[in-house]
Amino acid sequence: MPASDANIEVSITAGQLAEIVAGRLVGNPDVELNTVAGIDEGAAGALTFIRSDAFSGNWATSACSAALVTQGIEIPDHNADARALIYVQDADQALIRVLRAIDPANTLPPVGIDKRASVDPSADIHPDARIGPGCVIGANTTVGKASALIANVYIGAGCTVGSNTILHPNVSIADRIAVGSRCVIFANTVIGADGFGIIPATKDQHPIKIPQIGTVVIGDHVEIGACSTVDRAKLGATTLGNHVKLDDHVHVGHNCILHDDVVVCGCTALGGTVTIGKGTLVGGSVTIRDQVTIGSYAKIAGGAMIMDDVPDEQTYAGMPGMPARVALANHGAMRNLAKFMRTTERTLKKLTAEK
Amino acid sequence: MPASDANIEVSITAGQLAEIVAGRLVGNPDVELNTVAGIDEGAAGALTFIRSDAFSGNWATSACSAALVTQGIEIPDHNADARALIYVQDADQALIRVLRAIDPANTLPPVGIDKRASVDPSADIHPDARIGPGCVIGANTTVGKASALIANVYIGAGCTVGSNTILHPNVSIADRIAVGSRCVIFANTVIGADGFGIIPATKDQHPIKIPQIGTVVIGDHVEIGACSTVDRAKLGATTLGNHVKLDDHVHVGHNCILHDDVVVCGCTALGGTVTIGKGTLVGGSVTIRDQVTIGSYAKIAGGAMIMDDVPDEQTYAGMPGMPARVALANHGAMRNLAKFMRTTERTLKKLTAEK
Amino acid sequence: MPASDANIEVSITAGQLAEIVAGRLVGNPDVELNTVAGIDEGAAGALTFIRSDAFSGNWATSACSAALVTQGIEIPDHNADARALIYVQDADQALIRVLRAIDPANTLPPVGIDKRASVDPSADIHPDARIGPGCVIGANTTVGKASALIANVYIGAGCTVGSNTILHPNVSIADRIAVGSRCVIFANTVIGADGFGIIPATKDQHPIKIPQIGTVVIGDHVEIGACSTVDRAKLGATTLGNHVKLDDHVHVGHNCILHDDVVVCGCTALGGTVTIGKGTLVGGSVTIRDQVTIGSYAKIAGGAMIMDDVPDEQTYAGMPGMPARVALANHGAMRNLAKFMRTTERTLKKLTAEK
Repeated sequence: MPASDANIEVSITAGQLAEIVAGRLVGNPDVELNTVAGIDEGAAGALTFIRSDAFSGNWATSACSAALVTQGIEIPDHNADARALIYVQDADQALIRVLRAIDPANTLPPVGIDKRASVDPSADIHPDARIGPGCVIGANTTVGKASALIANVYIGAGCTVGSNTILHPNVSIADRIAVGSRCVIFANTVIGADGFGIIPATKDQHPIKIPQIGTVVIGDHVEIGACSTVDRAKLGATTLGNHVKLDDHVHVGHNCILHDDVVVCGCTALGGTVTIGKGTLVGGSVTIRDQVTIGSYAKIAGGAMIMDDVPDEQTYAGMPGMPARVALANHGAMRNLAKFMRTTERTLKKLTAEK
Repeated sequence: MPASDANIEVSITAGQLAEIVAGRLVGNPDVELNTVAGIDEGAAGALTFIRSDAFSGNWATSACSAALVTQGIEIPDHNADARALIYVQDADQALIRVLRAIDPANTLPPVGIDKRASVDPSADIHPDARIGPGCVIGANTTVGKASALIANVYIGAGCTVGSNTILHPNVSIADRIAVGSRCVIFANTVIGADGFGIIPATKDQHPIKIPQIGTVVIGDHVEIGACSTVDRAKLGATTLGNHVKLDDHVHVGHNCILHDDVVVCGCTALGGTVTIGKGTLVGGSVTIRDQVTIGSYAKIAGGAMIMDDVPDEQTYAGMPGMPARVALANHGAMRNLAKFMRTTERTLKKLTAEK
Repeated sequence: MPASDANIEVSITAGQLAEIVAGRLVGNPDVELNTVAGIDEGAAGALTFIRSDAFSGNWATSACSAALVTQGIEIPDHNADARALIYVQDADQALIRVLRAIDPANTLPPVGIDKRASVDPSADIHPDARIGPGCVIGANTTVGKASALIANVYIGAGCTVGSNTILHPNVSIADRIAVGSRCVIFANTVIGADGFGIIPATKDQHPIKIPQIGTVVIGDHVEIGACSTVDRAKLGATTLGNHVKLDDHVHVGHNCILHDDVVVCGCTALGGTVTIGKGTLVGGSVTIRDQVTIGSYAKIAGGAMIMDDVPDEQTYAGMPGMPARVALANHGAMRNLAKFMRTTERTLKKLTAEK
């Protein structure tokens, strides 16, 4: 197995950190911290976090030098001379703040248009935008302030990209697409390929393609993982609301509408004209059938195949998708199905024979 | 939610449109149309379509200005002074004709070879072909008349691309691959990566790679979505027949043979040496096991996992795949499985005790 | 259907071939061979292979001119005047040796840095490395001896790539990633996109992104298919051991650890923090839930959804995943579920009524 020496290194004392997160320090304020790690993985110098009672017992044997601890959790065997606990309202949230502070931002190309980029003269590129080598930008396209196209990004004609948006290498955005501000689209993702509007073959006729003349509209603060696809609408717009977050290998079919705050985990496929309400969480490897509507603040468990509408705030799971409690019971039953069938058949035979 | 202002705009009267589709106009021929929309979504100026009786009742309350209507459908409450119905043999087909007429074709690079493309001197590029910036074309490769490589497309050595074919940005075609004429391959799709011929590890031996020395052959009028992969054959050729249509995230394993007119929806995985007969429709999120043969004009429902051969003209579904009628019944049964097991066990216990 | 004329052509006699594979020739040593093919597909001039008794009967009607045969297999009706059998210890292994000998290696760019590549002045590119057109390499990145970036490959800042590694077109490697030696990464694969660490929305709060400050470390002799993604760790490193082989469309979530010799087939999704032991084989279209640990030398059947840990050397299958023997029985049972339920209910009703 290869070893990693590529971790982020920082240099801060526990006392300084406690001030940053506005936490209560119990222990040695001079402990030096240089990285962040899981409670059972870190070595001396590592900051860790204890978010629930389940991990409180691990502190005694952890090699980490300090921990962010959610208030109210009792930590046994704390050696306050050598190590530091920093009590905060929510260890997860505090950790996020620490991670943000030490996150080495992604390398971006310098401000301006790289001499190896190809930008149509009619495109309107903000002077503070960063257009890296190999990028290609079509006619009448707008790229806003401080947005960055890292390298080999393609944007077709008639598009708009807002401000402070980062497009990673090899992202491809077809004609007439709108992407908002403060978005991140990871490498090799494709926005605006044609929706799959195909009339299947008959014996007398080849498959027929229905032209897809619509577009894609993506709001602000949207993040899309690598190798994902958001297809162009047949008519109108495939729409991702503000703060939508998609993982890698997600497929959003033509005319889907994902309302604000929707989160979709990896390798999930949304058929055509799927609607997902505000704040809903869709797990990984899920398939949602064409035309289905999912309510708001619902949850779809990983691996589910959703064939019918899901009401607001419900949790669905299973294949076919059903309320999670029923799916869980059925999953359990399925594990014993063959055995149950055998036993039942034997008993029925016996009972019938005994008549 | 972001709003779309990127719709296609056209300008035509209902009377002109009726002539184009050779339809019978009932209503006001001077109604002006500027876009196409769903019957419940469009506003004044929109053309919509009514393909079946199920939608005929929506016309009265629709804001659309005109509709293509399949002959024989009765439309209640038509205000013929202000709006227009255009009766045609098949509203879907007529709509396709309209969409084709107003489809703003994808932006292509100009005819010729962009100065930022890298083309091997031995490559044979038709003078009417369009090779965009960042494209790379290997030795002895041929690109036919009026074909277009939009941007950052890679084609290896010894390939042929027919005429009138469009390769979208970041498409990658490896060495010795043949692509036909009038094809469209959407962005970031990969043709000709090695088939996955790996002998798994034993305790004494690492995994062993079997060289994949075959190729991929793609017919004419083929369309492949974004982020899809068609792998090179171990020996011989992975083959897509004429008029094959693949959606996004489709995986075609080494040595698969898809006969003419096959349609495969998104996120479907075909293992190695899968054969699919002419005109068959494969739904989305399907998995077909290595070596399986699917007949012609068959249908595979979305989400199915096909483990065995499927005869001609049959519809299969489920996991494991089985005739759709059986699968549907079993899916229904599965929803009640846990409950059924509990009830049955209780009843059997009671019956046995009563003996 | 299109026809392929793109097969590899070689020219060798059966006698010469027998020497190369150290085999025992029975038949005509002067038979000329010019390609390799399946036993029922090849024409005159083709070498084929017979690995088991199941195929021995096909030799009589095969048009192939010679066959590699595993010792001990009896071949009826061999016409030794016109054709040749070459007995070897293992026909599969011998075929691999032959394929390697005739494999036309992938076209690589010439040694040196293409004038259309963009390489940061601080990057350390070995003089024997091959950096093709459109490649972009960031600050302080190292590329080792004889490694090749074919075209439009992106490597961020602070990365290391070992020696003799091939990166196919449009591969994207983000900042601070380590890739070993003698690796192959196929086109459009993305290494080091952010792991999907998102706290889902509540009614009071948008989804929150947890910064992913870790990295990815890839060992030696690793092969990764096209359109796959290996995500950056939240902390520490997502790790692929030596000799790991991944197919196309594989997703490796943040903080996964795949030990040496692991093989993962196409379209499989590994959630976050999945650990897979040495030498394990994971089939295609598998989903493995976050946090699950799979033992070493285990097997996961295609299409399985693994929700719980799998012990060493066990074979799991099904949805939910379970020992394969149980899953197979349950799959069989599922095919008859609806019918079984009906019959059982009817019988129980009758028995109860008869009381």
